[in-house]
Parts: sequence; structure tokens; C-alpha cells
Amino acid sequence: MPKIAVVLSGSGVMDGSELHEAVLTLLYLDELGADVQCFAPDKDQMHVIDHVKNQPAENQSRNVMVEAARISRGDIKPLSELNSSDYNALVIPGGFGAAKNLCTFAVKGSDCEVDPDMENAIVGFYTAGKVVAPMCIAPAAVAKALGKKNIKVKLTIGNDTETASAINAMGAEHINCAVDGIVVDVTHKIISTPAYMLGPSIRDVGKGIRKLAEKVIEMSS
Amino acid sequence: MPKIAVVLSGSGVMDGSELHEAVLTLLYLDELGADVQCFAPDKDQMHVIDHVKNQPAENQSRNVMVEAARISRGDIKPLSELNSSDYNALVIPGGFGAAKNLCTFAVKGSDCEVDPDMENAIVGFYTAGKVVAPMCIAPAAVAKALGKKNIKVKLTIGNDTETASAINAMGAEHINCAVDGIVVDVTHKIISTPAYMLGPSIRDVGKGIRKLAEKVIEMSS
Repeated sequence: MPKIAVVLSGSGVMDGSELHEAVLTLLYLDELGADVQCFAPDKDQMHVIDHVKNQPAENQSRNVMVEAARISRGDIKPLSELNSSDYNALVIPGGFGAAKNLCTFAVKGSDCEVDPDMENAIVGFYTAGKVVAPMCIAPAAVAKALGKKNIKVKLTIGNDTETASAINAMGAEHINCAVDGIVVDVTHKIISTPAYMLGPSIRDVGKGIRKLAEKVIEMSS
Repeated sequence: MPKIAVVLSGSGVMDGSELHEAVLTLLYLDELGADVQCFAPDKDQMHVIDHVKNQPAENQSRNVMVEAARISRGDIKPLSELNSSDYNALVIPGGFGAAKNLCTFAVKGSDCEVDPDMENAIVGFYTAGKVVAPMCIAPAAVAKALGKKNIKVKLTIGNDTETASAINAMGAEHINCAVDGIVVDVTHKIISTPAYMLGPSIRDVGKGIRKLAEKVIEMSS
């Protein structure tokens, strides 16, 4: 039974983990027999978004890990405690939280910084020869963390030209991909799927995430 | 394509909708071709629970609908606007929010009150001969709303003796059920599944919710 670390970035598409992506990741990994542990940064979110108005909620602050615990029903650990030697693979669902709290791609594009614990995890799993599987916009953090080390990995965020250019500018090689597909960099063990970078519907997103989960297990067993 | 109203109660198992139940409801209904619209009460939550500490978060208030919009990616309507004539069925995921924000069963047991808009919706769909499908602890709201009208429906919250007794005390008939099963009251068109009242895992809960979704579509088409 492979042990999989899932890194969450809050709870809700506009300021945290996209909930469909996060929950379907947990579903498919569980159905495939994986032993899953969730992690998240124990720090304040970049901001809080009112998901009805799609505007920042004033005078509110929320902790990334505390909110992410809503997804994992309370069972979560600080990202600073994630050690790649304890797990077979690293999976990162998307949502704006991945580009606001795990790295700053949402505001700084290819000049973004990656959260230090996130960077340690990505580099740690990569260096140990283990699978790293980001979805949606989370590949931005992987492109940055590995691009800084001149490691050129193939991955996808769908087909958005501007975002793909920024991914390439960070040192990765962007590959266009449909929502029900995955991009597998066999050499570097990076698996990615566009999810809600394309959508449009939860059933479409589910197909790609299911394939990602299956490939993660296959390449980690 | 049946039109299904899904009523959410916040975002997170301890003070809102259980996220796995809510997202899997959306997934399976979408996979089955349903046209889904989410609703939630536009009012403050009973309270906010820190899901890491499992304790009330002090000095915080959150709006049920605004938080529930995290699950529906912003597309949500106030429960007060739900009219049973516009939809073929009513589905209610669980989580403590269903027993704190949709009714007060979590604190008052069989003496609970049902949110007036929730009560109108349950009675409206029932009276129109349409399916009402609650899961987990949400059957408590259905038992209370219909029990007040001396309508005795069969439903399940799993097999917890104390909760089952309270369900019966409100005028319903509790039927024990496994997590991968559903209880169908054909006469009254009530479909229920235990979900996380039993668990233990998301893949177990998913089996029951999948069957509930299939039966909802079958009895609404």
C-alpha cells in the first residue's frame, strides 16, 4: 500500500485548495488502496475571498492548515513536518491557494517565490526519485522549485498560452493537455493534469484526476 | 435531464456541510447527467469550529451561504429562493452543519427546530410528490419537518441507537443501513444513506452516495 502525501493550500477555489480537486484526489487514492496523509503550511493565507462576491473579505485572516483541515476532517500535519523519506509520492491539488499560499505565482508570475517547506518537499521527493504530481495551477510551484535547480521537467496546466509561457520561463517545458488527460514525464517522475484550468464540469475534472491517481500508484508501487 | 436542488449548510464537517459528501454528491449527479443548483441559508452559522483543534474558534462568525459557495465554486442561491416547482428533487448532504444550521438537532435532539426555508423546501418537494434525499445526519431535518405534519417516513442515519431513537421520536421510522447502502421509502419518495454517520473512509461513503444519486435520478425521471 503506497503512502501518499497530499499537500493542501486552504479550503476553497479562490483562496485555497479547489475543493472538487482535493476531495476527488482523496477519493481516487483511497479507492486505489493508498495510505494518504494530508499536509498544509501552518501560516496565514494570502487573503480570504468571499466566494459569493468573488472579492476579498475585509478584516479577515485564516490559517492555511486550519482551513485545509476541513477537507481532511481534522487529520492534517504542518507542511514543515513532511519528510520525503516517509512517503512514496507527493500529490498537490490546485485552486488559487496553490498559486497564493504554496507559491506566489498568482501575483508574481514567473518571478514567484515558492513557500520554503513546499520547495523542500518538491525537491526532496524529486531528489529521492519519487513521484511528484501537481494538478491545475500547482505545476507552477513545481516548475519554479525545480527550474531554480536547472531541472527541466515536462508538465501541463492545460492550454492557456500566457500561463504556459510563464511555466516555460521558469525552466519547465509546458505540454498542452485535455482535461481528461495527464502529462507524464517518465524521466523525472512528474505527473500533471489540467483539472479546473480547463474544466468545465466536475465530471470532466474527475476523469483527469482519476488517471493521475492511477499513474501515481503505478509509478510508486 | 432532471434538475436537482442540493442544499448545503456551510463548508466543513464540524460546522457546515461534510465536504466529501457534498463534493461526491455533485460528482455523481453530474456524471449521471443531472442539472444541479446549490442553495444554502443566507444567515450566520451557529458557530465556527477550528477543524485542527476541534474547538469553537472565538470571535469568528461566518455566513452559511458564503462558506457553502466554496463547495459550489461561487454558483449558489439563497435557500429562501428555492421553489420546488423549479426542480425535480431535493438532495441534502450531511455534516454537522445539517444539524446546526439547517436544523438544531445537534443541540436540541428531537425537540429541534428546522430552519424555516429548509422546512418549506422539504414540505414543498414532498407535497409535490418529488424526491427528498438526505444523507448522514440530514435525515433529522426531514424527520422533524414531515413528522410535525404526522407524515411517517422511513429513513436511515446508519445504526446509532440513540440517534435512531430521536429520529423515531420526531415521527419517522428509522431503518438500520450499512454505509454502502440506501434506504428507499418508495411511498413517500425519501432516499437516505448513512455516509459519515458510519464511514469510516471516503471510498465507503462514496458507494452509498453513488447509489443515492442513481436512485434520485431514477425516481425523478
